[in-house]
Amino acid sequence: MTAAATHDAGTAGRRGPGRPRDEALDQQIIEVTLALIDAEEEVTVSRIVSHSGISRAALYRRWPSLTTLIAAALDFGRIVPPDISTDGDLRAAVLAAMLGDPASVTAAGYSEARLRQRIRLVMADRTLQKTYWSSHVARRRVPMEAAFRNGIERGILRADLDVEACFDAIAGAAYYQIVVRGDHLDDPETRTRLHAAFDVVWRGMLARPANHTQ
Amino acid sequence: MTAAATHDAGTAGRRGPGRPRDEALDQQIIEVTLALIDAEEEVTVSRIVSHSGISRAALYRRWPSLTTLIAAALDFGRIVPPDISTDGDLRAAVLAAMLGDPASVTAAGYSEARLRQRIRLVMADRTLQKTYWSSHVARRRVPMEAAFRNGIERGILRADLDVEACFDAIAGAAYYQIVVRGDHLDDPETRTRLHAAFDVVWRGMLARPANHTQ
Repeated sequence: MTAAATHDAGTAGRRGPGRPRDEALDQQIIEVTLALIDAEEEVTVSRIVSHSGISRAALYRRWPSLTTLIAAALDFGRIVPPDISTDGDLRAAVLAAMLGDPASVTAAGYSEARLRQRIRLVMADRTLQKTYWSSHVARRRVPMEAAFRNGIERGILRADLDVEACFDAIAGAAYYQIVVRGDHLDDPETRTRLHAAFDVVWRGMLARPANHTQ
Repeated sequence: MTAAATHDAGTAGRRGPGRPRDEALDQQIIEVTLALIDAEEEVTVSRIVSHSGISRAALYRRWPSLTTLIAAALDFGRIVPPDISTDGDLRAAVLAAMLGDPASVTAAGYSEARLRQRIRLVMADRTLQKTYWSSHVARRRVPMEAAFRNGIERGILRADLDVEACFDAIAGAAYYQIVVRGDHLDDPETRTRLHAAFDVVWRGMLARPANHTQ
């Protein structure tokens, strides 16, 4: 198992006796970085070095830049969602993966406080934002976009769909709750609104009109 | 014309000889506040007082709290969109209002730099976010939600639509470009993606399937 995979699986907090030394160091650096982020302190290489006791050289051996380290730290504990089942009810599978469970694309799998802090950081630094997007977010979208393409092949979804735009509309409705409304994703009213948004987008994605209403 | 309406119309930058004294003071306070925001300095009452020369009392007579002042400053230059024409092509009118022109709901009518700064501020302060939402954003959504309701009455849109959720999905797709992808709203690729997202959402809003593809 690579260090990256360990971070993704969120298991880095569980240290086993057999864990290779490097992984423990990776984890220590990530934890120091996250502590600075959570404390709303500016994240600098000097601070990470002084808080972790790890050398500058060791840090740069692991991450080519501070930006890639911060992006990795922001992604800590988040997973690439598993493949979406394509042999059953596609709508139900997509709904569960987008809005349903703790591993969902939007609910993040980490605290709302850290999500808000992540948005603050990337709003202030477009390089960090682009790094985080390409190395982390875009990767997490792959299973969902594959499920949409599978739906097109099966004739369930329209052949002319822009699957990226469909993802953006569904996930965007969720971000709107956090970024504009300032609502919590687990509020019942917010969940109802997000399900209604999903219904509309999904209906617009269908090759043929759905029989069921709402 | 009230001071608030002047700010909304973005005309506060043009001083006429006949302008009442109070409006000029309002404008001066807003400008000092915006200068602090744009400079990424912390906005405090003391700083506004020292930079503007206006007394604390005069400031609080105009805005009941620093939060409402910052919210007003963030909204400076933005307008409540005009009513949407409901007697012609509803889709074209909605598309133009949501994504089409400088007064559109998403494109904001002010610089992307200030939009990113606004998001940073509200991510750090949920009270400011809620104030800004209820006193400014929610107000700007009114004409669009009215147009959706009109579409329902005319039988163009589904009777069971959650018009707020529809708005959130369309505007959310735009926010996703800024907040997650880090793209510019005026990039051709981004515009194409946003139009594709709009097409999907609109199709899902229709009472009957559209005849035209895409």
